[in-house]
Amino acid sequence: MPQPARLSRRMSVQQVEEGVELAPRFDRDSLLPVVVTDADTGEVLMVASMDAEALLRTIDTRQAHYWSRSRRGLWHKGATSGLIHDVVEVRVDDDQDSVWLRVRVRGSGASCHVGYRSCFYRSVLLDQVGDGPLSLRYEESARTFDPAEVYGDAPNPTRL
Amino acid sequence: MPQPARLSRRMSVQQVEEGVELAPRFDRDSLLPVVVTDADTGEVLMVASMDAEALLRTIDTRQAHYWSRSRRGLWHKGATSGLIHDVVEVRVDDDQDSVWLRVRVRGSGASCHVGYRSCFYRSVLLDQVGDGPLSLRYEESARTFDPAEVYGDAPNPTRL
Repeated sequence: MPQPARLSRRMSVQQVEEGVELAPRFDRDSLLPVVVTDADTGEVLMVASMDAEALLRTIDTRQAHYWSRSRRGLWHKGATSGLIHDVVEVRVDDDQDSVWLRVRVRGSGASCHVGYRSCFYRSVLLDQVGDGPLSLRYEESARTFDPAEVYGDAPNPTRL
Repeated sequence: MPQPARLSRRMSVQQVEEGVELAPRFDRDSLLPVVVTDADTGEVLMVASMDAEALLRTIDTRQAHYWSRSRRGLWHKGATSGLIHDVVEVRVDDDQDSVWLRVRVRGSGASCHVGYRSCFYRSVLLDQVGDGPLSLRYEESARTFDPAEVYGDAPNPTRL
């Protein structure tokens, strides 16, 4: 598959780290990880993946597009739920192998298919001693929507 | 390699999404992506990877440990540079295949090997028209340290 001309070829470390050309490095599955934060609060909402097409559509439309690992295809976030991610800023890291999207979420503001605002609604308890199983605690107290109402019978994307 | 007993086995979607057991899902390289943010400002500092050992050491020591892809081994961030990541919070996402670390960075506060505070020191210009190559602009104006002084002749981790 030829590299789209709008993404530059990676020629040198200096170009990648200090240049002003968008020259991303995709992994062996042709994807890169994307951190999505709330543009106003800084809260991390989710971690997703993009292929080249999703990245370019996100830049062009200013609505986040991801690669859906469960559906194996382009995923226009919010197309089903209405919870569109309007893009405020697209950042790229030093070696251009990951992306940070700052977004505003439409509707209820939830980004998590389980119903919470952020996918990161639990933290690891840090004061646990001994060799027992590690426990989590909830950092969000209430779901913002009922997944069954929004997604109906769509398969759950979580894999064991 | 047996799963350390402190990480629970993944038995059901409900356990993973709604339970309070830490039961992470590592990828085929035995890694998971980690988003690192400044605990005070919310700025995304870097995206890294952890294997099970790095995750457990991070929880136990409250200093971030990652998997170094370039060195192929455990990476105690700051061991060379002094820029330790003191861990304030460890969050896990709905399907427990990625981690969000909230940290405070010691020393100059930089997290990027190129010398910037955040690895995400450039953004994609969003008002570009036409089919030409996409351009970046700098969001941080100055390096916080000189990488040559801190790292000397250590090989640059960026791969083309």
